[in-house]
Amino acid sequence: MSQKHKFAVIGGGSWATAIAKMLCVNEPEIAWYMRNQDAIEHLRTHFHNPNYLSSVEFNPKKLFLTSDINEAVAFADYIIFAIPSAFLSSELEKLTASLDDKVIFSAIKGIVPETSLIVGEHFNETYEIPFENIGVITGPCHAEEVALERLSYLTIACGDPKKAKIMAKSLSSDYIKAKISDDIIGTEYAAMLKNIYAIAAGIAHGLGYGDNFQSVLMSNGIREMKKFIRKVHKMKRNINNSAYLGDLLVTGYSVFSRNRMFGNMIGKGYTVKSAMMEMNMVAEGYYATKSAHKLNEKLGAKTPIINAVNDVLYEGKEARSVFRKLTEKLD
Amino acid sequence: MSQKHKFAVIGGGSWATAIAKMLCVNEPEIAWYMRNQDAIEHLRTHFHNPNYLSSVEFNPKKLFLTSDINEAVAFADYIIFAIPSAFLSSELEKLTASLDDKVIFSAIKGIVPETSLIVGEHFNETYEIPFENIGVITGPCHAEEVALERLSYLTIACGDPKKAKIMAKSLSSDYIKAKISDDIIGTEYAAMLKNIYAIAAGIAHGLGYGDNFQSVLMSNGIREMKKFIRKVHKMKRNINNSAYLGDLLVTGYSVFSRNRMFGNMIGKGYTVKSAMMEMNMVAEGYYATKSAHKLNEKLGAKTPIINAVNDVLYEGKEARSVFRKLTEKLD
Repeated sequence: MSQKHKFAVIGGGSWATAIAKMLCVNEPEIAWYMRNQDAIEHLRTHFHNPNYLSSVEFNPKKLFLTSDINEAVAFADYIIFAIPSAFLSSELEKLTASLDDKVIFSAIKGIVPETSLIVGEHFNETYEIPFENIGVITGPCHAEEVALERLSYLTIACGDPKKAKIMAKSLSSDYIKAKISDDIIGTEYAAMLKNIYAIAAGIAHGLGYGDNFQSVLMSNGIREMKKFIRKVHKMKRNINNSAYLGDLLVTGYSVFSRNRMFGNMIGKGYTVKSAMMEMNMVAEGYYATKSAHKLNEKLGAKTPIINAVNDVLYEGKEARSVFRKLTEKLD
Repeated sequence: MSQKHKFAVIGGGSWATAIAKMLCVNEPEIAWYMRNQDAIEHLRTHFHNPNYLSSVEFNPKKLFLTSDINEAVAFADYIIFAIPSAFLSSELEKLTASLDDKVIFSAIKGIVPETSLIVGEHFNETYEIPFENIGVITGPCHAEEVALERLSYLTIACGDPKKAKIMAKSLSSDYIKAKISDDIIGTEYAAMLKNIYAIAAGIAHGLGYGDNFQSVLMSNGIREMKKFIRKVHKMKRNINNSAYLGDLLVTGYSVFSRNRMFGNMIGKGYTVKSAMMEMNMVAEGYYATKSAHKLNEKLGAKTPIINAVNDVLYEGKEARSVFRKLTEKLD
């Protein structure tokens, strides 16, 4: 139990709910901000989030629930953002409470569309938060399995390893093993890039490619990710650690991944727009593809899979022929 | 089309049938040996193997079918063995035809139980076949998807790259991309070791671990495989190539893998003996576990997953407690 630190969760989705559950094992009280006032009322009276992971029961005494992001930020010194990257800017605009001396952890697996930055970089560049106060919480972890208390491993990266340890300790339990890492840039890029490969896996599946090809796609995907991340931030890392390869696999092989589902619809013939409308949301990998592709114009890594997904999502090219050409570039 | 070389397939199972299908795309005639005379008669009259991949139709003019292994060996200069490793010794005992000047390709993903050697080493040590005449055909490739003509990638390794190219050319088609490799030892060990990790994945699933843990297990598995193979035969290789990581993934994530199914039954509480009886066969990974574990006593690689599977299969230890301890060693 952390005596010294207080935690706030920003977001009302499934991953935010899973993180709130994990923290409640160790912390006497956490702040939990969500926009949806009805969900807050439901949590107060029925002890569960009505919209996400609704099987998870909370002890209401442990929750300081608020629909005012400033109250949550003021409550805590460790702030965990777990909202879709597309909403981050508009949420941060509401902020009047200071972020000075706050430790910001991103549990967002995406790119901030307005700045094309990963979340850590966004806080650093836009809010001048130093990297020793910025961290990342990454998987491999489906929120649904946290709800079921199935053993899961998290990787907690922070510029300051002491803060990573504090975060890791507060998330750990019988069913959560949280490891720490010093690769804040690499782990966050991996969490973002894996969604692009999950879209690719979905497109391939939708086009009728089978498990043999899927394994080739993932094996090429991890090599491509390694090259990309090395160009962004060169340091000694084992790309086959759980935070990189494990996170790619849990997403790429999951039929529940929204990114994979989005790709699958494209592969089956939906237009990008109709797939988005049908899903009633935007998959994180959609923005990640554009940003990664654009960033790579400068980096110059060899990324045939990202290029193929970009061609399909943004260049209006036909998935079948793009992927037929892609198969020639894989090995 | 190869004018100069003749090919023989040894084996009547699904992988042998898939290889015969691939060769028939390019070759005017192949020899195909299987023990089962009824299956041969069925193939002659109904043009498909009654027991495996029975949807695949063969042109009978292209098949020299025989239940005499010596006839098949005499016919060809490239001999492809695709039988369970447990039957290799007894089949080879029937051999009176010479193997001198024959090129031997192993499509067997296992260890020869009598000698604890991978198949290439077995041919080298027991039959004095030089390594430039020994090759390996490896995946990632489910035979079932070859039957469906779904795009699949093979890796063909041989001590002599010219012979690897000849084999690769004869297997390639619209739906088969065969790449060559000079890592005959490493690819064959990978094909053998992946079955142990597939058993581990099955045990974990049977015990109730979820997809989050599965991705951690696979990410640790590929790192463990890298350490093991590096000790066996040190050379420059990218463990994330399809022949290693891809092959691990296609097996570890497949619900059709016999090794994974075997592990799953153990995880669900079957004894080793009853799981084998229920499956009416022995999974390749069963022998591979014992041999890899024994071999590693000399190699000294850090292999907690192989050790755990060995403890369950051969030391009579309870899967639940062995895997609980294993989770402490993974990251």
